[in-house]
Amino acid sequence: MKKSILIALLLVGASLLITGAIIHAQDSEGREQVTQGVFATLPDAPPIPDDNPMTAEKVELGEMLYFDPRLSASGVISCHTCHNLSLGGTDRLPTSLGHEFQTGGRNAPTVLNAAFFNLQFWDGRATGLEEQAEGPIQAGVEMALPADLAVERIAAIEGYLPYFEAAFPGEENPITFGNITKAIASFERTLITPDDGLDRYLRGDETALSDDAKRGMEIVAQVGCIACHNGPMLSLGTLMQFNHGDDLGRATVTGVETDQFLFRVATWRNVALTAPYFHDGSAETLEDAVRVMGSVQLKRDLTDEEVHFIVAFLESLTGEQPEIVIPQLPVD
Amino acid sequence: MKKSILIALLLVGASLLITGAIIHAQDSEGREQVTQGVFATLPDAPPIPDDNPMTAEKVELGEMLYFDPRLSASGVISCHTCHNLSLGGTDRLPTSLGHEFQTGGRNAPTVLNAAFFNLQFWDGRATGLEEQAEGPIQAGVEMALPADLAVERIAAIEGYLPYFEAAFPGEENPITFGNITKAIASFERTLITPDDGLDRYLRGDETALSDDAKRGMEIVAQVGCIACHNGPMLSLGTLMQFNHGDDLGRATVTGVETDQFLFRVATWRNVALTAPYFHDGSAETLEDAVRVMGSVQLKRDLTDEEVHFIVAFLESLTGEQPEIVIPQLPVD
Repeated sequence: MKKSILIALLLVGASLLITGAIIHAQDSEGREQVTQGVFATLPDAPPIPDDNPMTAEKVELGEMLYFDPRLSASGVISCHTCHNLSLGGTDRLPTSLGHEFQTGGRNAPTVLNAAFFNLQFWDGRATGLEEQAEGPIQAGVEMALPADLAVERIAAIEGYLPYFEAAFPGEENPITFGNITKAIASFERTLITPDDGLDRYLRGDETALSDDAKRGMEIVAQVGCIACHNGPMLSLGTLMQFNHGDDLGRATVTGVETDQFLFRVATWRNVALTAPYFHDGSAETLEDAVRVMGSVQLKRDLTDEEVHFIVAFLESLTGEQPEIVIPQLPVD
Repeated sequence: MKKSILIALLLVGASLLITGAIIHAQDSEGREQVTQGVFATLPDAPPIPDDNPMTAEKVELGEMLYFDPRLSASGVISCHTCHNLSLGGTDRLPTSLGHEFQTGGRNAPTVLNAAFFNLQFWDGRATGLEEQAEGPIQAGVEMALPADLAVERIAAIEGYLPYFEAAFPGEENPITFGNITKAIASFERTLITPDDGLDRYLRGDETALSDDAKRGMEIVAQVGCIACHNGPMLSLGTLMQFNHGDDLGRATVTGVETDQFLFRVATWRNVALTAPYFHDGSAETLEDAVRVMGSVQLKRDLTDEEVHFIVAFLESLTGEQPEIVIPQLPVD
């Protein structure tokens, strides 16, 4: 796409930013209708699975569980430890420190807007937030609490029962591992960050992006980043090949050779908050990450100027962070 | 004091609960004026040191630092990890898990209302919250970040500078270890829990304590608990001998034989939230703690009934927990 055409299109403003969308997202429910161009505004609410409708009671319980360190073997690690809502929903470490200070193999992805992804984890091994939540609680290097012990632990805190009863009315024994993960997933569906610079720009506020950011937006289209980074999440949400380091990605789950180096495309939303980057956390800064992606994915050495503008665009993608009042947890 | 006299005095109600106060507190500023009897309501605000006046800017910065895990060597342990405001300002572990999952030697005391204490730590080795905050950040088994590295770490996050400038106006280099601890202490001075059952009762609400709690209040006076547990904190705030276990208490700091087994008297405020109990966390429940204190301190085997009533009184001492919105932290 020539620069002159692109600029003409940019002048259209509104949500139809770059028409003739090369790619449209098709990997998660409800995505199609909001993807009107290469980029799109973040929807107000994510898709909700039929078997886990959202209720205020479930969200409240999920928030409590999200912050409860007793959901780990040690009693000190909560979901919030690695998906810290003060720090863009991440821990800002290359790979997380978990049980007994063991390090995990991959960088903790942000929980912010994760509800808009269907595939979860870097290798997409879980579908939906409920299945995702089953992983870290039990993983030996993370929270290290097997499902049955997690249920036992939470059930032993009698003050939790009324919250489970309210969240799962009519169930005889509402404290189950499935309900723990359903509640956490429901809370996570509230962790949406609206109104970043791009969203406000797409809605018609020409001043919401700086000139540098607008130039960066042109460049990511010109050089081809938008082949994978598009739609409301600025990510396809599917797995793409990224041959960088030893991690075999999806193939570590499937053992299939063609799955080697397949990783979920990272979202650009709030990306300025979530350094370090990549599945191995090997890129310390946005500049590093942009250069590596240019080189590895686009076979292109981006100039300092191009990197500067792209980073300015990425920095405009920090949305309003959720306002969370620390929950009071039952103690017995 | 005979039971009949005590009951007569209880009928007076109001803040002059038990007159002829055996002890009045004298260990921290501003305490004298609010201590009108054995127990007294928690003041609205704690004493403020002359060299660290409170400002909204300083409290805001202190809250950020309190929640910032980057103030630890590992990047995952914050003040909030062991003084968790979802869990009564403690971690509910016998002794805390710190850097590299090392365990500390003593139970983490609650940060709630700690501002009303002058002496800090179980052995009273720090005076005031500022000096207290210097300890855990640097302690090898806790956050393990030496003062100079802590300053370097925070100064490297450029987004912190405006907050330090606002909190410490006119200072040329406001990012110092002293200012880090001053800000944290200022935030901690906001962590006050008013209006528990006792406070409402002392202000004249006869229904604020259950009959069982009122009976427990009589018993703690009769059997002598109030010799140490009195005043607005239901603690002298000074060190008293508690010969229980191997820990030599104050003597570990001074080496003086007469300081052996001296520990700061624990507050009863919010005590129902802060199990397990004692400097070594050896008492799992309030019932256990009450029995041990009766036996070790009062040379008395409390009956099941007495324990029941005392626990009912202690359970009435949970105040309104501070409402804390998770701060957003600068990332670079």
